[in-house]
Order: sequence, then C-alpha cells, then structure tokens
Amino acid sequence: MLKVNAFEASQAAALPAEQQALIARRQRLLGPAYQLFYDQPLHLLRGEGAWLYDSAGRRYLDMYNNVASVGHCHPHVVAALTRQAGQLNTHTRYLHEQVLDYAERLLASMPAALGNLMFTCTGSEANDLALRIAREFTGGSGVIVTRYAYHGITAAIAELSPSMGEHVAVSAAARLVEPPRSYPGASEQVGRQFAEQVRLALADMQRHGIRPAALLVDTLFTSDGVFADPPGFLAEAVALVREAGGLFIADEVQAGFARSGSHMWGFQRHDLVPDLVSMGKPMGNGHPLAGLAAQPQILQRFGRNASYFNTFGGNPVSAAVGMAVLEVIEGESLQANALHVGRLLQDGLMALAGRYSQLGEVRGAGLFIGVDIIDAEGAADGPAARRIINRLREQGVLIGAAGIHSNTLKIRPPLCFDVTQAQLFLQTLDNVLDKSQA
Amino acid sequence: MLKVNAFEASQAAALPAEQQALIARRQRLLGPAYQLFYDQPLHLLRGEGAWLYDSAGRRYLDMYNNVASVGHCHPHVVAALTRQAGQLNTHTRYLHEQVLDYAERLLASMPAALGNLMFTCTGSEANDLALRIAREFTGGSGVIVTRYAYHGITAAIAELSPSMGEHVAVSAAARLVEPPRSYPGASEQVGRQFAEQVRLALADMQRHGIRPAALLVDTLFTSDGVFADPPGFLAEAVALVREAGGLFIADEVQAGFARSGSHMWGFQRHDLVPDLVSMGKPMGNGHPLAGLAAQPQILQRFGRNASYFNTFGGNPVSAAVGMAVLEVIEGESLQANALHVGRLLQDGLMALAGRYSQLGEVRGAGLFIGVDIIDAEGAADGPAARRIINRLREQGVLIGAAGIHSNTLKIRPPLCFDVTQAQLFLQTLDNVLDKSQA
Repeated sequence: MLKVNAFEASQAAALPAEQQALIARRQRLLGPAYQLFYDQPLHLLRGEGAWLYDSAGRRYLDMYNNVASVGHCHPHVVAALTRQAGQLNTHTRYLHEQVLDYAERLLASMPAALGNLMFTCTGSEANDLALRIAREFTGGSGVIVTRYAYHGITAAIAELSPSMGEHVAVSAAARLVEPPRSYPGASEQVGRQFAEQVRLALADMQRHGIRPAALLVDTLFTSDGVFADPPGFLAEAVALVREAGGLFIADEVQAGFARSGSHMWGFQRHDLVPDLVSMGKPMGNGHPLAGLAAQPQILQRFGRNASYFNTFGGNPVSAAVGMAVLEVIEGESLQANALHVGRLLQDGLMALAGRYSQLGEVRGAGLFIGVDIIDAEGAADGPAARRIINRLREQGVLIGAAGIHSNTLKIRPPLCFDVTQAQLFLQTLDNVLDKSQA
Repeated sequence: MLKVNAFEASQAAALPAEQQALIARRQRLLGPAYQLFYDQPLHLLRGEGAWLYDSAGRRYLDMYNNVASVGHCHPHVVAALTRQAGQLNTHTRYLHEQVLDYAERLLASMPAALGNLMFTCTGSEANDLALRIAREFTGGSGVIVTRYAYHGITAAIAELSPSMGEHVAVSAAARLVEPPRSYPGASEQVGRQFAEQVRLALADMQRHGIRPAALLVDTLFTSDGVFADPPGFLAEAVALVREAGGLFIADEVQAGFARSGSHMWGFQRHDLVPDLVSMGKPMGNGHPLAGLAAQPQILQRFGRNASYFNTFGGNPVSAAVGMAVLEVIEGESLQANALHVGRLLQDGLMALAGRYSQLGEVRGAGLFIGVDIIDAEGAADGPAARRIINRLREQGVLIGAAGIHSNTLKIRPPLCFDVTQAQLFLQTLDNVLDKSQA
C-alpha cells in the first residue's frame, strides 16, 4: 500500500508553479497522511465512461479506478442518486422498501445459504463488522491473512492488513500465509500448497492458545499481486479452517460485482460458499456504500446481543444507488464484457510479454489483471514498474501497482471498458516499453 | 443504545397485515441485528425541512433526526450533490480543489491550532482514526470514556462505547467515569468533580501499567443523557489528562455543526482546544461524510509512518456536499436559529415541568435538549419515557430517548426548526402528558 506509485514531495520543484501551489496548500490543510499518485500528480475535473479529464482538458484512459466500476458518472446511477436524495434520506430504523428490494436482488446473485445482508459505508467497516461477528460466533480471536493483504483501515482491520507496512503492527492473534506467488511445482498443486500453509498457521495458533476465528482473503489476492488461478485452489484451505472451528470470510471488495468476468463474485470461481462476504468499492459506483452478506445462523447471537446500527449504512439513497449499479451491470451485460475484454487484454499482454523480457507473468480474471515487471535475471523490479506506470500516465493511460515488491502492474479498468480502449492500451504499453528499453 | 424505543417483534400481531409482511420480509433479508423504532414502526417515504411523510401521506414533525441537520432533502445540498456526481467522483490521490476549499472553510470555524482535516465516511471511522493516532502519538493505550458513552461501531470503538450494552465488552485499557448526572452539590463544583473522577481513572491506569492515550468525550454527553452545563466544566479534567501524557479527543458527531446554538462546536462551550476533533452525522446532511480535525504536530509521525487512505473519504462529491451544508448553516443563520428556538423549547419544557411532576430536569444547549422522565419518588422512569415517545409518535411528533435508564427524552430537531413548530411540539407534549397521567 504504502508509497506505491506515490508522488515524492522532493520532486515538487520540477512541477508547474500552479501545481506546486496546489500541492503545498493540500499539504498544509490535509496534513502528512495523504499521498498523491504519480511523479506528476493529476488534477482531474471530469469523468465519463472509462475517460478522465484533467484541468487542461487532456483526457486519460482510466484503467485504475475500480470504484466507478460501471463507468464514471454513469447517468443511470446519478439519476437514481438525485431522485432519492430529493425525496428522503433517513436510516434503517424506519421501514423502507427500497433497501429490502436492493438486499433481495443482491442476495439473489449469491448462493442461497447467504441469506442476510447488512449495510456499512466502507469496505473497511464491512471487514471490521465481519471480524466482530466471526470472533463472537467462534469465541476465537485468530485470523489468517496473506503476506501482503489489504483489508481496510480501521484499527482492528489495519492490524490484519500487512501491506500497510512495517509501522502498522500485525495483530498478535493473526498468522500470515504466502499467496500462491512463489510456490514450486505445477498449477494443480497450488491448492494443496496453500492449504499446507494454512494448516501450519492453525497449528501455530493452537500452540499459542489462540482459537481460530477466520480465514480472511481477498478472493483475487489483489494486494498480494493478483492470484486468480487455478479456480478452486482455496477450497482445501477453507475446509481446514472450518474443521478447526473458524469461519471463511470472502473479501469481495476488489473481486466482487462482476469484475472477474466469469462470475459475479470471486468466491464463486472457487466453488465455495463463504460464511461471510464483505463488499465495498464498486457497490455504489463511488457513493459510499458497502455491506456484508452472511449465512443467517452466523448472525443469530451477534444480532441478538450486540445489535448493529450504521447511521448512513443502507439509507434510502444508498439503496437506490446500489440498485441502479446492479441494473447497469445487468442491463449493459458488464460481466460478459469484463470476460470478453479481459481475455483480449490478457492475450495482448501475453503477446507483448513474448516480445519484451521486462514483462513477466500475466495473471488475472476478467478485468482485474496483474503483470509482473522483472529484471534481466527474472527478479521483481519495482522501480521499473514505477517508471512504466509514470510513462503510461504521460501517454494518457492510468494504471497502478500491487504486490510486496510493487512490481506487478495493476490493471482494473471500469467494467464498461471496450475493445478499442483495450487496443489503445496495448499499443500505448508497447510504446512505453520500447522507450524503457531504449 | 440497545433497545431504546425499539419495536418488539412480539407486538407484530397488533399491526396491519401489510406492515407485518414488510417487517417479516425485512427480518428475513437483513437479519436479527436490525432494530426498528416505535411500537408501531414508521414507514417513511418523503422528507422536507423538519417534516417527514409516511406511506399513508401522514406527516410527522421530526425532532429526532440530527443527520438531516439543515432540513430533509435541502435543495441547495441536493443540487450540489447532483452537480458534482454528474461531473467527477474519484478520490484524494488526485488533486482536486473542492476538497481543499471545503477543508479550509471547515477549519476556519475552529481554533487556528486545529490546522489539518482528514476525511472518513462515518463518525465511527473518525473516532477509530482518532484512536489510532492518539495511541501512536502517545505510545499509550488507555482511554477514558463516560459510563454510557457511544462513540461508534468499529471493533476498536465499540469497546469504548459502553452504551452498546453488556454483551459488548469494554476494552481492558479503558476506564469509565460518571457523566455529571449524579454529582452532589452546586453547579460550580461539576468541573472539580468530573476532574476528580478522571484523576482516579488515570491513577488506576498507572497502577495497571496502562499508559493513557486519550480522554474521549461527546462534548454534550448526549448518550449519557445530555449534560451541557456548566460551560467550561471539562477544562480541569482535560488538563489532568494532558499532564499525564494523554490527548483530548472531542467527539463532535452529536454536538458539532452549530447544534449547540451558542457555538459551531461543542468544545468551544468549554473554552478548550482539543488535540483531535471527530465529526460526522450532520456533516453531509445524510450523505456519508465524516472527518477528523487535528493539531498538525499530532499527525506528523502517524502520517509519515502509517499513511491513511479512505477510498470514499473526501472525494469530490463528499466535498461538494459538505461545502453546501456549511453554506446553508451560514446562509440561513441556523446557529442563531438553534440558539433562539432552543431557548424557547427549553423555556416551554421548564414551564411544563412546573405543571407535570413526571417531567424532571430539563437540560441541553441549542437544539439538543434532554428532559428526564421520573416517577412519583423522583426516580428514573424509562417505561414512562417509552410511553411518552410512542404517544408523541401517535400524535405526529418524533423524538427518542437517551441515558443509562433510557428515561431522558432526546430532542434534537433539524436546525431549521422554527418557532411555530416548537409551539406545536410543546402543545402536543402537553396533550400527551395529560393522557399519561389520567
């Protein structure tokens, strides 16, 4: 997380005076915790579909922002927001049909066992709530997460997000396992190898007197560097955790809402039914809307004892916006588009990888793709990834980086991304790689 | 918090069939953690100013909802939301002037020492962030909160919210102090007595090897039962906490944004400059917007080491909405209105208390007022408060309850509440009290 593709204040002198002033003002008002992207930060004013426009009117192809997932400022979503915001915006302690219609439609996209939906405003809150419920249900505190996972920024979840960096201590009750990056052997062994690590983590918890509460994973392992394959590799590890009394929490903040192309939810690629499913980012296309689906029996005691009220969570406006997003995903066949255009992108990237030794493995599902940038010895090359990302930005294409070495290009355009835009990206990357090897 | 004025499922049979079906559907979809208000839950469809309208077209005078603080569906706020949502909605890793303009204007309403503003989506997230910063800055973990405080629902903040009830354990590093409810003696001794409890809490922390991180209080002590007076009573306790190395976190989620009438912020009534100021509910008039103001030196190390990114927090739409709310507060002189109408309400309530022995102490500031409901012996009478709240709802007026005995009527209408509406409320309460004593 920390400092991936971040602007360095020491480079400010190279920027136009107007931008230097804006950055200084920002630093003065927002303080030191806020970072900007790119060597030359972007000053954006307008968005439409997969395009973003800066203050000089220049357009950028957005292949980074998975929040505005059905396209920037989608008119159907903005209309729903406007309509409901002008009518009523209260909370879930009054009856309102919209939130039930929305919950019903969203739950219909999941296995029937996931029968309840709770509402929060952010993915962090959704994971935080999942953790509270898992700990209450199991009586345990132990959580297994991957080496470079990111699950959110509340105090309890930052402790389970090792990608926050060395200054944010990992929970004493957490155990870290390796994502399937460095496993030896063939693809069909990934599940066994992942499960073996989870088995060791559970044994270590037991030795420390820590009862397991949950295995918590991003079902596309995006922060770790995007590890989607082989589908199904999670199943054996999940079975081990459940045998030990823990729950399986699928963090769908990145993978959910049709991004993987083949499925609405990342966990479906693994043919699993989680106990809890957290979701966020694309859920409201930018409106602060997030939630947690649950198997009802998991919620019984927590619901009765602790109750839950999130002031803004699931209010009529959020429900209207969430519903509009689902309508667009379905009405514009965005899942099928993610599958189709995602394949084109992966094929194109693999073709480029055949021509440029700098490009390593290409991985992903649908419109979430990772491409490793490697040096001549095949080792992770974070600085080169950073150069590529900044050159792409100069050429009008926005992507990011992921992984513990920040060397995996993180490509996740809006789901409305089309074939022409995919070709433009591949051509631009080709240009950029030419230059970087010149 | 728990079960105050909550609908009991056992009473469902008394409701119309249509409402029973809606409640059953809600229970099935949202699960057991969601509660409804009132013996006869409200099904609301529309809001305007201080009025809410139900599915039968009946109107209710809203004296409960402090979120839609400048009035339900305020056209200036809805227009700002619509405009920016149709233009751009990204995040704080790109430059955008709107968020800086907003931060500047908001910070201008506070003492100059509070120089930085950070953005979250909920008050819970703001308090959670404040806690992380305070613990990082002080190296301590101990937090002092009041006996029946509510500060939010993340795992770390629910532990500091004893009003969540017996099933949510209070943090082992927390110490509880009494709000100024039961203090003996004259008003001028409140500050000394509050400080004495804080001194004992600090001594107890020291005995347990717990280093203090913060005193965290809602500056109107609303969940505890609304304790506003005498202004300044917090100062001595805050000085003690600072001497012991802890910070003062002012939770302005309830008191902030002009509600107290005399000041924009509750801490200003105590003539204090907090280290951290959390805010939420009314900040976006229902849009999920919250934040944390900080003295810059407190943020330095946290910002450098931990960084902070909240996906939706401080995005251009939130900034536009937040700015519109500030413009309405100023443009419609809502702070002065809160002071004026709040005084009328308090005076009217005290006059009623002279006629009805059921009404005990009337307390508050501006448009946040608490009225104790007591029995013939002067003891807290929660069931009677519940009856009054439900009768007011039958008569078309919405209020709630607060305090450890749930016997304090919680009255906090939108800040646009006018004199005629205040008179209508007083008349309705008069009618309701007549009946309850018949």
